Amino acid sequence: MRLRFRRATRDDVPAVVELLADDVLGSTRERGAIETYLSAFDAMTAEANNQLIVGVDESSTVVATYQITFISGLSLAASRRAQVESVRVAARLRGQGLGQQMFSDVEARARAAGCSLLQLTMNAARSDSARFYAALGFTGSHIGYKMYLD
Amino acid sequence: MRLRFRRATRDDVPAVVELLADDVLGSTRERGAIETYLSAFDAMTAEANNQLIVGVDESSTVVATYQITFISGLSLAASRRAQVESVRVAARLRGQGLGQQMFSDVEARARAAGCSLLQLTMNAARSDSARFYAALGFTGSHIGYKMYLD
Repeated sequence: MRLRFRRATRDDVPAVVELLADDVLGSTRERGAIETYLSAFDAMTAEANNQLIVGVDESSTVVATYQITFISGLSLAASRRAQVESVRVAARLRGQGLGQQMFSDVEARARAAGCSLLQLTMNAARSDSARFYAALGFTGSHIGYKMYLD
Repeated sequence: MRLRFRRATRDDVPAVVELLADDVLGSTRERGAIETYLSAFDAMTAEANNQLIVGVDESSTVVATYQITFISGLSLAASRRAQVESVRVAARLRGQGLGQQMFSDVEARARAAGCSLLQLTMNAARSDSARFYAALGFTGSHIGYKMYLD
């Protein structure tokens, strides 16, 4: 199956939230009201360097999603970074190479935005994904720290 | 010593680059021309959610820096994240609690921007920093993956 990747529209938000929740970690935490997610989509759209992408199948159904943020900075001789978050493929379609297609799209968008570094963090509990990222050519050189603010 | 933290201006860029290079990892990689860094600063300024912060001492000398990016998204019930990069304190001033002051400033800016999650990645080679982040209340729950694009 070949997916087509495009910028999400506001109409795609419910399908994206369904994908985020269709996940061993996401199932317990994606319980916001749809209005909350629509507001977040509007906030993303206002951040010009922050994009929600969807992957659609031949019937235009949303079956994959990721978020990509282009971050300029001074470090690493002023490298622009592309950061990927919230990567999901529909559970029924996993193991068919759609993740590779998604990361081809990530790389193309990152290069088009002038980025020389891709980065993402993965919950260390997702051991299957570790193999996936290593196979794509990522190096797990960093520790990802998180702190929730009350 | 109490530092004052403020948004960096274009005039601060050389001092920030010096701090980035004054580091076991940074010394080998911060070798760009100053014009490259100034262009990156202009690109950061154009990204309204992306800020370069400096910490200055009583004589207004830049002795610390970090970058903070506010990233809206749908995940985690539409949490806005504050991501920190490129954290540095001048080598001669390390071990005096300035890092804690810096992260108080990080937290204040993150809350003011409506963020409910702080995140950063640290090269796993920086074992001293691991203790520092744990003491601040961060959880090293994630693996940080990087891939350079040629």
